Amino acid sequence: MERFRMLFQHFQSSSESVMNGICLLLAAVTVKLYSSFDFNCPCLARYNALYGLGLLLAPPLALFLCGLLANRQSAVMVEEWCRPAGHRRKDPGIIRYMCSSVLQRALAAPLVWILLALLDGKCFICAFSSSVDPEKFLDFANMTPSQVQQFLAKVPCKEDELVRDSPARKAVSRYLRCLSQAIGWSLTLLLIIAAFLARCLRPCFDQTVFLQRRYWSNYVDLEQKLFDETCCEHARDFAHRCVLHFFASMQSELRARGLRRDTTGKN
Amino acid sequence: MERFRMLFQHFQSSSESVMNGICLLLAAVTVKLYSSFDFNCPCLARYNALYGLGLLLAPPLALFLCGLLANRQSAVMVEEWCRPAGHRRKDPGIIRYMCSSVLQRALAAPLVWILLALLDGKCFICAFSSSVDPEKFLDFANMTPSQVQQFLAKVPCKEDELVRDSPARKAVSRYLRCLSQAIGWSLTLLLIIAAFLARCLRPCFDQTVFLQRRYWSNYVDLEQKLFDETCCEHARDFAHRCVLHFFASMQSELRARGLRRDTTGKN
Amino acid sequence: MERFRMLFQHFQSSSESVMNGICLLLAAVTVKLYSSFDFNCPCLARYNALYGLGLLLAPPLALFLCGLLANRQSAVMVEEWCRPAGHRRKDPGIIRYMCSSVLQRALAAPLVWILLALLDGKCFICAFSSSVDPEKFLDFANMTPSQVQQFLAKVPCKEDELVRDSPARKAVSRYLRCLSQAIGWSLTLLLIIAAFLARCLRPCFDQTVFLQRRYWSNYVDLEQKLFDETCCEHARDFAHRCVLHFFASMQSELRARGLRRDTTGKN
Repeated sequence: MERFRMLFQHFQSSSESVMNGICLLLAAVTVKLYSSFDFNCPCLARYNALYGLGLLLAPPLALFLCGLLANRQSAVMVEEWCRPAGHRRKDPGIIRYMCSSVLQRALAAPLVWILLALLDGKCFICAFSSSVDPEKFLDFANMTPSQVQQFLAKVPCKEDELVRDSPARKAVSRYLRCLSQAIGWSLTLLLIIAAFLARCLRPCFDQTVFLQRRYWSNYVDLEQKLFDETCCEHARDFAHRCVLHFFASMQSELRARGLRRDTTGKN
Repeated sequence: MERFRMLFQHFQSSSESVMNGICLLLAAVTVKLYSSFDFNCPCLARYNALYGLGLLLAPPLALFLCGLLANRQSAVMVEEWCRPAGHRRKDPGIIRYMCSSVLQRALAAPLVWILLALLDGKCFICAFSSSVDPEKFLDFANMTPSQVQQFLAKVPCKEDELVRDSPARKAVSRYLRCLSQAIGWSLTLLLIIAAFLARCLRPCFDQTVFLQRRYWSNYVDLEQKLFDETCCEHARDFAHRCVLHFFASMQSELRARGLRRDTTGKN
Repeated sequence: MERFRMLFQHFQSSSESVMNGICLLLAAVTVKLYSSFDFNCPCLARYNALYGLGLLLAPPLALFLCGLLANRQSAVMVEEWCRPAGHRRKDPGIIRYMCSSVLQRALAAPLVWILLALLDGKCFICAFSSSVDPEKFLDFANMTPSQVQQFLAKVPCKEDELVRDSPARKAVSRYLRCLSQAIGWSLTLLLIIAAFLARCLRPCFDQTVFLQRRYWSNYVDLEQKLFDETCCEHARDFAHRCVLHFFASMQSELRARGLRRDTTGKN
């Protein structure tokens, strides 16, 4: 049990590592979710862009909000923001620090989904196959514009009768996938460079202020946890006394009937 | 044994975490249940909608009631509601708090089922394939309306002779699945936004009242648990004394017959 | 628990082994990433070189920055560099030592990607198929220069109608892949020789200085970790006292209502 308590205390003291764990877990769930999701483009000119962009952007929004919900600190932050100012000064810097820390962790999973979708390319092909410039490909020379539009809408559906084994479909699909991957890699690079600058150049500016804010945000979190625990302890204590009070009257009833326990009994 | 007692006490003190655990377990069971369920559309015009909607809505109802049954607090709530008012005031706010907490946890598993079914799309295709507007698809141009109806009813059955390898079946099925997924993702987003608002904006309104209700709902739960335990303890104590009383009379009977144990005996 | 604590302390004390672990992990992730990545050359003369070189160089850049981000010591190094000089002298040698140690570990994953890509050859064929000198191959004798250019751009796409089953495509592809593998193996040899010289000849020069720098870089890292832990400890202590203060006033209220615990009670 000592072991559990120590583990528990470790989790209590280092909420940051727990939050990082949650953040990694959500990212892993995202990868699993994406790979098990059955992507299915409608191949109807009107719905393609809606469906493709929807799948590129709606799940990340859901994951972002999930990330905020799963993070204990987002609630702690709002409470700290709304609490009446007592003896402890309300410092907007602490709230800003908590906010940025919560946002960073909540953004991990959505970005994983978007990057996966871009590197995979299916969403992108579905969304933009109708917007491709047919001039780029030599295969559309002997088609009317309406035929070209119908053909382009069917590009994401490999198995469709109209486009099966068509070299033009493969060329358009290849072009769009390569564009999607290029955007995906550029986005990855940009994000990593931004993270790198934020992490590695920060110590050159306001390191002391940063450390103080981190300390206080940690403190606010710990105070809430201890308050909850002490409340629970208190409730149990109170309930214990009430129940004993109830049984004390029963005990006296038993004693009246001569069935009371000996004061020298072993049990 | 000390270890078990500590673990038990930990579970006792934090019923919320236990309930969350049950809620997660039910959701996981739901996913397993859905993935192992053999969906099998009748493909008869009259029964399709009934079967599809039935499978979309009946299991969630069962799971909802299971969620209520599995949650200890739903029984505690009813008892708190029905108890005679003694020295402790009956606060409808506490009952409302318990009710909302129980409902939230019981709704998790049904929602998981509904979202899985919508994202998978099979139920939706089975239920609504007959209601599709044939004007949207070019493939039905040379069919009579009754033929179209018969064809649409067969859409969910890939292997049926009438629709096997038909591009029209694939187009209708693709359209319905994409609609189903769109509804599923919209529902997910709506639910998550609602949860987000409820969780993150609550501290701005009635935080003190909320904390008090949480404390009291916790207290009611603990009081019942302690009462049950003390009852058990008390009953055992009483039974022990009664049994000893019985044997005490036997002992005196034995002594009277001269068969009492030697004071120097080995056993 | 003692076991966990020992493990934890081991990780704490020997950050080098943790960093080596991270470095190995990143390299393994790189291999997995490369093998699961769906390489897809556009086969359009203008985009080929861009896409091929992009995939040869952009992911390694991303991995390099990831390696810097994942390494705790890169932040420690910047902090050591920017800290105001106090009683402890700021030695540029220590910062140089940390920098080189961080760089070495961050370079592992990018090099793995580049070597994999070169030994595999797909990126290289995609990037340079248009730059091949057609004089080297006899198969282009009866083609116009523009036809040759179009043919060469299609070389990376095996399945394309224009080049399917063409012996010329196979010859060009074979030539480029063999060139790519030769560059890959040469690079591997060079890197291993450089690592060998650096590791095995270093003790002949400035071993004492090197050991001192290693000791100090380790010290700086440990100091930061201990500071963080002590901050946490301090916050918990403070929060504990504040919460107890709040409940102390409640306790006196209970006592006033006659429900106080006996001072001699065991529970």
